[in-house]
Amino acid sequence: MNKTAGIIIIGNEILSGRTQDVNVAYIARRLADLGIQLKEVRIIPDDVSIIIDTVNKTRAAFDYVFTTGGIGPTHDDITSDCIAAAFGVPNEIHEPSFKLLESHYGKENFNAARQRMAHLPRGAEPIVNLVSLAPGYRIGNVYVMAGVPRIMQAMFEQIAPTLQHGQPIISKSCYGYNVTEGQIAHDLTDTQNQFPQVDIGSYPFYESKEKHGVTLVIKGQDQRAVNQAFESVYKLLQKNGFNPCEGEPVLNN
Amino acid sequence: MNKTAGIIIIGNEILSGRTQDVNVAYIARRLADLGIQLKEVRIIPDDVSIIIDTVNKTRAAFDYVFTTGGIGPTHDDITSDCIAAAFGVPNEIHEPSFKLLESHYGKENFNAARQRMAHLPRGAEPIVNLVSLAPGYRIGNVYVMAGVPRIMQAMFEQIAPTLQHGQPIISKSCYGYNVTEGQIAHDLTDTQNQFPQVDIGSYPFYESKEKHGVTLVIKGQDQRAVNQAFESVYKLLQKNGFNPCEGEPVLNN
Repeated sequence: MNKTAGIIIIGNEILSGRTQDVNVAYIARRLADLGIQLKEVRIIPDDVSIIIDTVNKTRAAFDYVFTTGGIGPTHDDITSDCIAAAFGVPNEIHEPSFKLLESHYGKENFNAARQRMAHLPRGAEPIVNLVSLAPGYRIGNVYVMAGVPRIMQAMFEQIAPTLQHGQPIISKSCYGYNVTEGQIAHDLTDTQNQFPQVDIGSYPFYESKEKHGVTLVIKGQDQRAVNQAFESVYKLLQKNGFNPCEGEPVLNN
Repeated sequence: MNKTAGIIIIGNEILSGRTQDVNVAYIARRLADLGIQLKEVRIIPDDVSIIIDTVNKTRAAFDYVFTTGGIGPTHDDITSDCIAAAFGVPNEIHEPSFKLLESHYGKENFNAARQRMAHLPRGAEPIVNLVSLAPGYRIGNVYVMAGVPRIMQAMFEQIAPTLQHGQPIISKSCYGYNVTEGQIAHDLTDTQNQFPQVDIGSYPFYESKEKHGVTLVIKGQDQRAVNQAFESVYKLLQKNGFNPCEGEPVLNN
């Protein structure tokens, strides 16, 4: 059985619409590569009791939990205090991280705010930050990462080799312009019933009155079943009078 | 008190990393305009029991719930069956929508799959779809919309005037290149304490070794307090030797 995962995005800036989140898509794509099933994402505000409650529910529900955001030095960076509270441990100086940051900033510039980034919940193991030094960390099955996408990505790539990989999900797609789902839905249900080992997803796209259609995505762990279902779906589009293309359409929005 | 809202994004394609979600950012920005507080987003798979459970929890927790995805005609469009089950009502033919779609497609092309789009949970009120006709709907405090961004946006704009608007959140921002949070965190905490009526958010950006810094965002409902806190934050950057710019930096990633 593949391992399961949940993501918790901590950040008022996402909920206010200020920031377009891109961390979910990155982590989701990488987890799919690794054969780990992403089951849920929650985006929550910078609120102590909500963070603690969400972390505890999510870590009980899935094999891995990834959080992003709130581990910097400013007053609104409250993630580590909350993670410590969720695990019932103190958020305390982590000596190796303290020394690393102190030698980087120099003793007189390593102020109280920066020292907060050298505090980890007791028992946490740091995740190296190759971009801006202040570490993320793992505690139990929870991986706590920065919110800045470049830094988050670098941290995730440190973690990736340590996760228990599963059978990767194989995916094949094709699409047709001017297809509407209603024209092919009946045949598509038949194909899905014929290939219960795969999941067939139907995703309409609509860029303009001239450029719209449907993308069909076949996913599964058995390469042969995915290939056979793909053939069947491709022919289904032809049979209905369309000219299918392999892959995904390039869209501007 | 401003009304509260939650969003449920229903879609395997987001959790698999295939699709970059843009619906959260759109709805979040519009809710902020309308003075409605977005408190939580959940992204969940196309799974009957998870959808029913999430809809019921979320509609009990917030004034408004917005869902996107899964209301088309294909086998993987299971949202309406789940919403009906969550409310304990049948998912049945909605006569006006049935007639609308039948006259659009013509009797012989209005097949069983397309007729599914004319089924609404009993008691639901349709949301007009100006893009592709098949309606969304409201049932209780739950607004069920399409997943395709252009269609979702058109549906949201149909809903927006009917929502109970609140005091809008006023926001002012400034940023400085080469600022690191650790340099200003202490002064920033003082400023936050001085202006408890506003929320000051500190958001580092990191595009490259040459282009990085921090954006400071002041939010609140009292224009005067926001202005005063903004002045204070702007001066704080100057005092620490930076050259602040009003607004948000233009970033490529």
